Amino acid sequence: MSSKPEDIRTADLHKPVDIAEYLFTRLKQIGCDSIHGVPGDFNLVALDYVPKAGLKWAGNCNELNAAYAADGYARVKGIAAIVTTFGVGELSAMNGVAGSYSEQVPVVHIVGTPSTASQKNGMLLHHTLGNGDFNVFSNMSKEISCAMAKLTHADDAASLIDNALRECWVQSRPVYIALPTDMVQKKVEGKRLQTPIDLSFPENDLEKEKYVLDVIFKYLYAAKDPIILVDSCAIRHRVLKETHDFIEKSGLPVFVAPMGKSAINESHPNYGGVYAGDGSLPEVKKRVEAADLVLNIGAIKSDFNTGGFSYKTSQLNTIDLHSTFTKVRYSEYPGVSMRGLLRNLAKSIDTTKLTRSAIPVPVPKNRVAENSGRSEIITQAMLWPTVGEFFEENDIVVTETGTSNFGIWETKFPPGVTALSQVLWGSIGWSVGACQGAALAAVDAGGKRRTILFVGDGSFQLTAQEVSTMLKLDLKPIIFILCNDGYTIERFIHGMDAEYNDIATWKHKSLIDAFGGAAKGARTYQVKTQDQVRELFNAKEFKSANVLQLVEVFIPKEDAPGALKMIAEASAKTNAS
Amino acid sequence: MSSKPEDIRTADLHKPVDIAEYLFTRLKQIGCDSIHGVPGDFNLVALDYVPKAGLKWAGNCNELNAAYAADGYARVKGIAAIVTTFGVGELSAMNGVAGSYSEQVPVVHIVGTPSTASQKNGMLLHHTLGNGDFNVFSNMSKEISCAMAKLTHADDAASLIDNALRECWVQSRPVYIALPTDMVQKKVEGKRLQTPIDLSFPENDLEKEKYVLDVIFKYLYAAKDPIILVDSCAIRHRVLKETHDFIEKSGLPVFVAPMGKSAINESHPNYGGVYAGDGSLPEVKKRVEAADLVLNIGAIKSDFNTGGFSYKTSQLNTIDLHSTFTKVRYSEYPGVSMRGLLRNLAKSIDTTKLTRSAIPVPVPKNRVAENSGRSEIITQAMLWPTVGEFFEENDIVVTETGTSNFGIWETKFPPGVTALSQVLWGSIGWSVGACQGAALAAVDAGGKRRTILFVGDGSFQLTAQEVSTMLKLDLKPIIFILCNDGYTIERFIHGMDAEYNDIATWKHKSLIDAFGGAAKGARTYQVKTQDQVRELFNAKEFKSANVLQLVEVFIPKEDAPGALKMIAEASAKTNAS
Repeated sequence: MSSKPEDIRTADLHKPVDIAEYLFTRLKQIGCDSIHGVPGDFNLVALDYVPKAGLKWAGNCNELNAAYAADGYARVKGIAAIVTTFGVGELSAMNGVAGSYSEQVPVVHIVGTPSTASQKNGMLLHHTLGNGDFNVFSNMSKEISCAMAKLTHADDAASLIDNALRECWVQSRPVYIALPTDMVQKKVEGKRLQTPIDLSFPENDLEKEKYVLDVIFKYLYAAKDPIILVDSCAIRHRVLKETHDFIEKSGLPVFVAPMGKSAINESHPNYGGVYAGDGSLPEVKKRVEAADLVLNIGAIKSDFNTGGFSYKTSQLNTIDLHSTFTKVRYSEYPGVSMRGLLRNLAKSIDTTKLTRSAIPVPVPKNRVAENSGRSEIITQAMLWPTVGEFFEENDIVVTETGTSNFGIWETKFPPGVTALSQVLWGSIGWSVGACQGAALAAVDAGGKRRTILFVGDGSFQLTAQEVSTMLKLDLKPIIFILCNDGYTIERFIHGMDAEYNDIATWKHKSLIDAFGGAAKGARTYQVKTQDQVRELFNAKEFKSANVLQLVEVFIPKEDAPGALKMIAEASAKTNAS
Repeated sequence: MSSKPEDIRTADLHKPVDIAEYLFTRLKQIGCDSIHGVPGDFNLVALDYVPKAGLKWAGNCNELNAAYAADGYARVKGIAAIVTTFGVGELSAMNGVAGSYSEQVPVVHIVGTPSTASQKNGMLLHHTLGNGDFNVFSNMSKEISCAMAKLTHADDAASLIDNALRECWVQSRPVYIALPTDMVQKKVEGKRLQTPIDLSFPENDLEKEKYVLDVIFKYLYAAKDPIILVDSCAIRHRVLKETHDFIEKSGLPVFVAPMGKSAINESHPNYGGVYAGDGSLPEVKKRVEAADLVLNIGAIKSDFNTGGFSYKTSQLNTIDLHSTFTKVRYSEYPGVSMRGLLRNLAKSIDTTKLTRSAIPVPVPKNRVAENSGRSEIITQAMLWPTVGEFFEENDIVVTETGTSNFGIWETKFPPGVTALSQVLWGSIGWSVGACQGAALAAVDAGGKRRTILFVGDGSFQLTAQEVSTMLKLDLKPIIFILCNDGYTIERFIHGMDAEYNDIATWKHKSLIDAFGGAAKGARTYQVKTQDQVRELFNAKEFKSANVLQLVEVFIPKEDAPGALKMIAEASAKTNAS
């Protein structure tokens, strides 16, 4: 009997497992219980291993939606994966994966590619540009991946997989794994699976960390009115426990940037609200800008996240803690991560040396009465505080780029809420996919959390079919569609009455019918007055329904949250400059 | 009064026009009467110029669909344009534009980008990766564009635009135009608009062309049974008139590859059918493979287009005419384009030296009776010839990757039909967007052509919302949805009963309701038996309806055209190799 090199290798393995099984088992081990994506001819055999590894297949309607869903899933569950096919599928997912890169969300992008032999021979296959170049698409993904793994040899496939998953977790950014069709069933060492992937975060150099700590303490103790401002990287880089410990220990006032909303328990007495420069509530703006030291935890100082660059805080009064560096005033400390610093700040702070200002911290609340006005028309001003009252502990709240993303600043969350938004990348349509992913993650995590989506009628049209996936998967989110006749955020930037900001009017009730909602008991509602909103929100059968629900909320098209109007104006100016 | 350099320049212009107006006017001049795309904050001001330049705004539901629509529009109208916004929008369109690149379709991709000042300052804007890199997305597009134009200075903007549009037309591939927000209203010389862009194709070097002609004639005259095989590049590179002239003059038998279907008048006595290796009808396969010389015009010898690489014709008996080179047996002639050669082949052929074989050419026909079987179940075998009988002169026929793409080989077209398919790139979902674009192109072109779409229920779900755009634009295609419970083409490659090849069952009638079909008088039908198909096809009010119509055609899920089964099997083998 002839003995091929491949056979010898397989015989040498203690516990041979197929590469695809290895990959999906690893994903399961690190907390990814469902796989998003769309089948395609170069990933079919690999997909056979999804159920084999004990995973669920989400089966999205298209790849962009799948990428959005994976993003939402990862924000709730800590990790997610999407499977696409070479060329067509992976490029469709591009914008979604880029969003995860931009917003630092750990998504594993697995691309089923043509066989290594086909690639070597430059075959003129479908899903290619017809030029024999099989690297062109993975090259495009390099810029939106923190690691690339092309599994072209059984020898190093398991190492490459482990390394990619580790980088995805630790850097909290997408990784790209190319799995050629002929590699799916090649054997790797299954014994490795008994040792978990090392997901520990790199520790700071001790001497360097001590040095930076001393610098931070120096300014912290010298300040008369220091405050803490928490932003999204504190969430993404998994330092919320450390952050809360430090808040507890220091007793300092704490605020969040828009992207950091839900990072902090909003019922905590130290919590003062959302700071976004001129886009903040007046009392929040006043209180933050009165501080003589701002300790930023995981800040992303992007236009929309800073109220159009309208911070009035000085860099001379700022300490920035990041995942890969620290900046105190203008001094930078590369390689010193916030994780170790926060741990030690909480541990070593001498609260007797700390001045806590006597100026009170604003108490966030949902200002329903003062924003309801005298008319029965539903306004953005009325809606958002009312929504805040509707929220329950541990809700997952997804808000679309547009009025929802800004309106949500005006709500106070109960404890345990997880808020998902895409303030930096801002891709319209994202939230519908993200809602599917978030709702599935909540199910996979076991608890009983509601998932609630707010999306405008314009944005909804980009990705609407993912509601079908939600129904298919028996997910039961509450979907609020803000019906205001088009792209309201665009109207406030330019073209208030322009035709291009209009959309076709959809009957969302029929859409639920089309997607098979009846068989799943899905319900739809329309609310056109403030009374109807209140009535709906108070109805027990609505609040705790065990079915998918879609609510059309009718709002005038020229209405928007105040912060949006301000920031849209700033954007228009930047565009023209 | 102070005089800035910019003022001086504007004062020097004979007829100052804004860059955006220049761009859209140029597009209108070369035959693009509608613009596809989605508004976004970095393209809004530019969109004001769409109606100003006398163009229509399609306003798609999302950018991928817009790119597909532009692809379809260009295939019918000769040129198309899509407008997206920086980052999010352009990446969403990526797969669609890549498809146009792969299949050589001239689409102008205009991306509204942040202002030149924002880019220079590396501002942390939304729609960025948060790293200050404003070139990352345009770099991704380089590989799928035959020209890039970044309009960052008024001085050369008009030249860059003219050059990009020329390259798009001449190379028949996408070009990328970046239009920063602050450049939209900068002034360029409007007098240029009085001189049309030079869209003439480069001529061959005369001596070289003569040399190649002589070589071709040598083999042509020596052959006992030469035939012509026409493929998609003959369509894309606009040599159909030259091709027909040569067929007329030479009297040689002519066949088409799948991607070339509709290039040749199928009622022409010389026309013998679709050749796709083992995927051909037996009599076509036999006739083509009996030839001792195949003159390929614009061939793309990709897997699906060659019946899974099953050509039995030898390269020693092959002459390949391409847009950028010629290949006779194994001799290559770079830079010698088919356009000049075809013109001269028709002009100079000495038919007395030509042997025309006595073997008859198969006569294509729609074999309805012999494929209808005895059962009343609608089969793919019955459907496609029946559809062939349903077609009328000048119909535009769009077929989705999947069973439709293969089934259409089994129809005989009346004269003047234009067939759209994506056999090389093969992105599922493409056809719904492409149908919108094709139908709009037909309206823009003035005539009264029907646009008819065939799409599977799985593929339809990727891009379904574009039916809403069709209704909004008052387009009236006939949409056939092949309801066969999922991704049938994938089932034949791998996973016949796999869960991942299943889809949620949709009620397409409700979908039309959801998209506002009632107000537009749209009609829906269901056909479940062969009799119902025949009845529907014979109904005058169906054939010539002046409203959008959607037909659900129910077909068993394990049924597929014979060619698809054969090629799927070949694909599965290649994948495993």
